[in-house]
Amino acid sequence: MTLDVVVAGLPKAVQDATDPDRGLWLTPSQRERILAAAPDVRLEHLPVDDLDAGRGPERAPHAIMVETSGSKSALDVEQGILTRRGLDLLLTPELRLLQSMSAGAEHLVGIMPPGVPLANASGVSAPAIAETVVAGILADAKMTRERWEHQAAHRWVELPARELAGAVLTVLGTGNIGTTTARIATALGMRTIGVNRRGNPVETFDRTVPTAQLHEVLAETDYLLVAAPLTPATRGLVDAGTLAAMKPGGWIANVARGAIVDADALVAALHSGHLRGALIDCHVTEPLPADDPLWDAPGAQVLPHDSHASQLLGERQVDLFVDNLGRLARGEELRNVVDLDRGY
Amino acid sequence: MTLDVVVAGLPKAVQDATDPDRGLWLTPSQRERILAAAPDVRLEHLPVDDLDAGRGPERAPHAIMVETSGSKSALDVEQGILTRRGLDLLLTPELRLLQSMSAGAEHLVGIMPPGVPLANASGVSAPAIAETVVAGILADAKMTRERWEHQAAHRWVELPARELAGAVLTVLGTGNIGTTTARIATALGMRTIGVNRRGNPVETFDRTVPTAQLHEVLAETDYLLVAAPLTPATRGLVDAGTLAAMKPGGWIANVARGAIVDADALVAALHSGHLRGALIDCHVTEPLPADDPLWDAPGAQVLPHDSHASQLLGERQVDLFVDNLGRLARGEELRNVVDLDRGY
Repeated sequence: MTLDVVVAGLPKAVQDATDPDRGLWLTPSQRERILAAAPDVRLEHLPVDDLDAGRGPERAPHAIMVETSGSKSALDVEQGILTRRGLDLLLTPELRLLQSMSAGAEHLVGIMPPGVPLANASGVSAPAIAETVVAGILADAKMTRERWEHQAAHRWVELPARELAGAVLTVLGTGNIGTTTARIATALGMRTIGVNRRGNPVETFDRTVPTAQLHEVLAETDYLLVAAPLTPATRGLVDAGTLAAMKPGGWIANVARGAIVDADALVAALHSGHLRGALIDCHVTEPLPADDPLWDAPGAQVLPHDSHASQLLGERQVDLFVDNLGRLARGEELRNVVDLDRGY
Repeated sequence: MTLDVVVAGLPKAVQDATDPDRGLWLTPSQRERILAAAPDVRLEHLPVDDLDAGRGPERAPHAIMVETSGSKSALDVEQGILTRRGLDLLLTPELRLLQSMSAGAEHLVGIMPPGVPLANASGVSAPAIAETVVAGILADAKMTRERWEHQAAHRWVELPARELAGAVLTVLGTGNIGTTTARIATALGMRTIGVNRRGNPVETFDRTVPTAQLHEVLAETDYLLVAAPLTPATRGLVDAGTLAAMKPGGWIANVARGAIVDADALVAALHSGHLRGALIDCHVTEPLPADDPLWDAPGAQVLPHDSHASQLLGERQVDLFVDNLGRLARGEELRNVVDLDRGY
């Protein structure tokens, strides 16, 4: 049986794309791998501007891999990203798999045609994001910013940098990003606590507790990582009260979704010194406006939602798609299927 | 049998010392632990200025723990550090153990009384140094300096940061610092190559090669860590030729001794772009002069020889001394004894 496949949209932070503005990035060898994923694959790698202008694929696709992050309306015009209007051209009755190139899928949950599985890109960017988080934690512990200021002034000043051994990393969300980060943290001698809805044990962590005990564990937490999906239960979960529950001098990273953390409360906690620092990759409004107070908040490391930047991103994205195309062709269970009720 | 013990001098970068200028740092519980290390221990924690002024201990010590880094002459007046003159007061005929608080012992090798074992502090600061190296590697891979420049200007700019998975870390010197760093690098998905004199296999590394093959492995090295002791064989080992043998775009860290690396050649390699960056903690002249070209070399992270800064340093130093005092009292083999011929 023929499998008609469409790829459209640029995975965020993919490197060396041939035509990023039009969302074209597959290398010749990546095309080959997709074509070889099942016995009879036909592939269209479509420019997003064609789709946005109403020019759909030649053949109604059975499987699509798309980057639609945040494209809730046709007004979104992020570079190389498919708009809702372009996406609609691909949501045909033939469709049997929507492979997203984003880990967070909350914006697609509500618009999926009934019966079509939505697979997210969870895991594709987890290693790079985990590295970025650890880089942020180490920059805090080693006082890197202060060091570089002294260096710029040619000043020889020893600093009371800290060692991570024994420090506690609490991770809200025990998925790919959380477990990958915890594994590195363990190698650094940190103790790790995982937090998920029901406190389901996850081997990678020293302990796992339910979300209901979040405040309790925050009292002993040196570093908090927010790596949970955005759901009604996590929206605004890290509010002023949660931040106040953190151990004084604590540090927080958000690599999930901006709406999970109350940005005003965070900025206040940094200014008061209750928190020593933060690494914030995700923001409610992106790009973060130039006058946002987070940019200058003490100890804040502000990232433009590219914590997942990696030279390996495109290759891993294709790995996942090829795997799922093979499973689809063989009638096997797909990987990374989103539970549309839970939203992740 | 009574064991008379003297502690003098401030371990470099120890935090929360009670009187750093006079080299006094033992906490009450650390004193207790030293007193309990063997059946009948008597302890004198002596101010370095008293010793420097010729006021020696009340009792000729059997075991001393001293910080003498770089104190080659009585002219050295680093904060809290014992000078050669002060040290000489402790080198009595009773002495049966000199426990150094420094990992590098080359400056003590030539002045040890015959038959007295010299134990170095190897391992005490290895975890903190390894973290500092990994922090430097991650700052390079994640383009942290560029990120912070954009942040300071409130600019939303995505950067082509790299992932460490698959990158090669080569470590010159397979001791505590080298193996601890390699263990963390492995958790980050890096491949590791250890380099030691004879290429003795060390389990932590994916491969180990003899120093004679250094240039060969540098051609495939992304990150080089210099963590070898300073010996006649390593002095100047990382010269212009060695740097030229590195893969273009490589990166180097030196946390060992300044004299192992040719600083002029390093600065030139950073300016030419042959090397993308460096983390240099050790310098031939310390403090590094304000007009040294290394401060402003592209990609250089310059540290004031405090890569080992850690809140756990004092406690680990006491752990080691207590262990060795117990071994001395029981007539057992001591830990960390320096081979005076090899120099480490």
